[in-house]
Amino acid sequence: MGITTPEAKACDFVLFGTKGDLAKRKLLPSLYQLDKANLLNVDTKILGVAKDDFSQEEYRELVTTALETFVKDGLCEETKNRFLDRCHYIGTNFTVSDGYQPFHDILEPEKRVMVSYFATPPAIFGDICRCLHEQNLIYPDSRVVLEKPIGSDLATSRIINDQVSAYFEENQVYRIDHYLGKETVQNLLALRFANSLFASKWDNRTIDHVQLTVAEEVGIEGRWGYFDKAGQMRDMIQNHLLQVLTLVAMDPPVNLDADNIRDEKVKVLKSLRPINADNIYENTVRGQYSSGFLKGAPVPGYLEEEGANVQSKAETFVALRVDIDNWRWAGVPFYLRSGKRMPFKSSEIVVYFKNPPHNLYSSNYRNLPPNKLTIRLQPHEGVEIQMLNKVPGLGEKQRLQTTKLDLSFSETFKNERIADAYERLLLEAMLGNQALFVRRDEVEQAWSWVDGIIQAWEETDEKPKPYPAGTWGPVASVALITKDGRSWDE
Amino acid sequence: MGITTPEAKACDFVLFGTKGDLAKRKLLPSLYQLDKANLLNVDTKILGVAKDDFSQEEYRELVTTALETFVKDGLCEETKNRFLDRCHYIGTNFTVSDGYQPFHDILEPEKRVMVSYFATPPAIFGDICRCLHEQNLIYPDSRVVLEKPIGSDLATSRIINDQVSAYFEENQVYRIDHYLGKETVQNLLALRFANSLFASKWDNRTIDHVQLTVAEEVGIEGRWGYFDKAGQMRDMIQNHLLQVLTLVAMDPPVNLDADNIRDEKVKVLKSLRPINADNIYENTVRGQYSSGFLKGAPVPGYLEEEGANVQSKAETFVALRVDIDNWRWAGVPFYLRSGKRMPFKSSEIVVYFKNPPHNLYSSNYRNLPPNKLTIRLQPHEGVEIQMLNKVPGLGEKQRLQTTKLDLSFSETFKNERIADAYERLLLEAMLGNQALFVRRDEVEQAWSWVDGIIQAWEETDEKPKPYPAGTWGPVASVALITKDGRSWDE
Repeated sequence: MGITTPEAKACDFVLFGTKGDLAKRKLLPSLYQLDKANLLNVDTKILGVAKDDFSQEEYRELVTTALETFVKDGLCEETKNRFLDRCHYIGTNFTVSDGYQPFHDILEPEKRVMVSYFATPPAIFGDICRCLHEQNLIYPDSRVVLEKPIGSDLATSRIINDQVSAYFEENQVYRIDHYLGKETVQNLLALRFANSLFASKWDNRTIDHVQLTVAEEVGIEGRWGYFDKAGQMRDMIQNHLLQVLTLVAMDPPVNLDADNIRDEKVKVLKSLRPINADNIYENTVRGQYSSGFLKGAPVPGYLEEEGANVQSKAETFVALRVDIDNWRWAGVPFYLRSGKRMPFKSSEIVVYFKNPPHNLYSSNYRNLPPNKLTIRLQPHEGVEIQMLNKVPGLGEKQRLQTTKLDLSFSETFKNERIADAYERLLLEAMLGNQALFVRRDEVEQAWSWVDGIIQAWEETDEKPKPYPAGTWGPVASVALITKDGRSWDE
Repeated sequence: MGITTPEAKACDFVLFGTKGDLAKRKLLPSLYQLDKANLLNVDTKILGVAKDDFSQEEYRELVTTALETFVKDGLCEETKNRFLDRCHYIGTNFTVSDGYQPFHDILEPEKRVMVSYFATPPAIFGDICRCLHEQNLIYPDSRVVLEKPIGSDLATSRIINDQVSAYFEENQVYRIDHYLGKETVQNLLALRFANSLFASKWDNRTIDHVQLTVAEEVGIEGRWGYFDKAGQMRDMIQNHLLQVLTLVAMDPPVNLDADNIRDEKVKVLKSLRPINADNIYENTVRGQYSSGFLKGAPVPGYLEEEGANVQSKAETFVALRVDIDNWRWAGVPFYLRSGKRMPFKSSEIVVYFKNPPHNLYSSNYRNLPPNKLTIRLQPHEGVEIQMLNKVPGLGEKQRLQTTKLDLSFSETFKNERIADAYERLLLEAMLGNQALFVRRDEVEQAWSWVDGIIQAWEETDEKPKPYPAGTWGPVASVALITKDGRSWDE
């Protein structure tokens, strides 16, 4: 941190939808943090684009308010002023090429890197691309960053990707999944491939099963209309959980280049055992939260939220048993779960190792607790190993106890600020490194698999099972894993 | 701790040499701690034996003084009184059977367990055994605990063991190596055999090499005459380091019964590659400390200590490369070192794992630091794993850093008192469990291997290399390991 990277070329960063929630909450604050850390080239410009007519002063006020509201560690006056000097605004109808004319007053096409960030509804991605093309703003060093959702199934994602790829090559397209920007997700590769303790033990000979949990405490937060069309499967599993799964499960890549990593990720997605009407009951659980209590306070059910259609069958919770049919993972299930209105926010990967082949302690312990590796993504990023140690003491035969060897990122790396995922991703897009972005074939492979599950739910008319807000989902989710003789991590 | 073990049968504990340093410093305080923890049967008696004429009152005063001086956490008045009530004294010439006549007034042979602890010079072990026999004090439930040194080579150890075994069966003989009573040494078996993370990786496919260090800060402490005859090889390596080595290296035993564990340990000792005049230079370093500084204060050299013979060639430091010629450890050297007047007191086992088969981070790191498992025996017992993690931060390619996952015993098991090694060993002797004691064939096998080295030193007239007090031994010790492309743990 804090050093100027030589690669940080001068860049025109064009933020479509600069007045939206994502831009104000995440993107502008992340760009500010990069500036503060001297990671932006001194000549880099930020061009905000939205529909409204806005003066430069009004825009800078909007930016200032966004920074004041969402930058957590206090604003540095010097950085803020430098940052505001980078900011420009153009108000235009996104879909009409003429409106892009003023871009030429600010940007320098062909001469500088151009990163267009589409923080807009996907329906207009195609129009924006066409207009950029018509204004000669697409050239080898122009890149486009796409926010999710990229479609709501394979067919609609193809339409969007086709519209973009009519103008941009795949190596110019940066599909965001902000989970890939998280520090601990990044660290997953280092853990797996730089540590022989894990590198040589990462397969079905040594691992019993893997659990991925992304639990949200929040409910729908006024997004009922949007969310209800998607459901938790499309909103969380298709992207975040499957992306994390690929990083846990992938084979070692040829090297750490973007396409070599993504080649291995897509191989995992291709190896996912299809879930269809024949095996949907054994392998999936859908849930929908009813009213309940969160940390003692009553909260409404999903169907009682503002704007709700009380007939909705959208799921707010999904649990899956996923099998990866390849040589490495044959017989090692991955259990995924993600839901809203869980007891607390928590994202973690837990790798359960197999027990030693023979239990020398069987006279005291019929079953030894397994070793497990926990990678916490949030709220407190860290790594933890559970081991068995002998409890100190006399006069008793070998009393064992599970103990944790803990590595908290924030404590271990006290002097390093843990960057927000968006900071990393914006920087990587400006630097032209695609490793942390999702390639088209990954998106489509993930949709293809997810579509099968959603279709099977429809075919079998599988309704979500209610679970009280503030619990870990329907009881069926527990049954899903206990029938295999295992249990969710606690 | 603190619970009464049902197995704690009433016992007559006979302490030969009760006025000696070991008895006062370690044995009496340990017995007191066992009493405090309710681990002694209410009827257990302690019979102190020494040459002098002493009244019961004088003996109880001696015991009281020993407890007051050497029990660290303050005396419990109630326990102290109960403990003193158990204590009896008999003054006698050890070598004359008639002197043992008064034992019958206190002990109850055949009816109770009898544990005779020989805290005396080994020269009279045989006499004591004979006298006990003549007084009919040897019966199936009598046991004998032998303190080191048991001989100064194979031949002399056989004499002592023969003298004892003329009267006691091997299953009645408990040879003390107090390292086997240490909590972390105990935990070694749990770590290795209850954790699949290690159980399945404990061989030459996954481990690069192992280091055992026992560094003493002290010098000779007035023991010059005794120590000079032995040297560090006999004083530390033949017993403590080789014992620890066997526990690190042994195959999984059939079960945790004493003889099954010791069968595996002796197999390791039998597999030690002999060191002789042909390979002595590559595999051993002898050192002797010269004057230097310890934590800033000047300290004398070995030859300047009180009582020193300035011609002495005794070594106060030994470093060895040990090869174990069996299937598990072929190609995995064990580096041992032990010395006096080192910079600080430290005993540890460090297991270095092999690097992953391929270095994905080679553009940034020509060599990745290896994973290692450190087991600290003293001063702060604990377990530590060194791993590589990505340093949080942006704009740099995969900066890695070694980080430690730490398990400190005293912090993790805050509510458990870490017992002194002697407490455990005395208790186990009273309970009749030989697992933590050294079997005759182990002693002899260890001597046989050590004798070869000492003989090769003599044959080659290898003199100890001087090293300044307060350093890690002669430079040759560094060369011993660096010529293999490795380095001592720091």
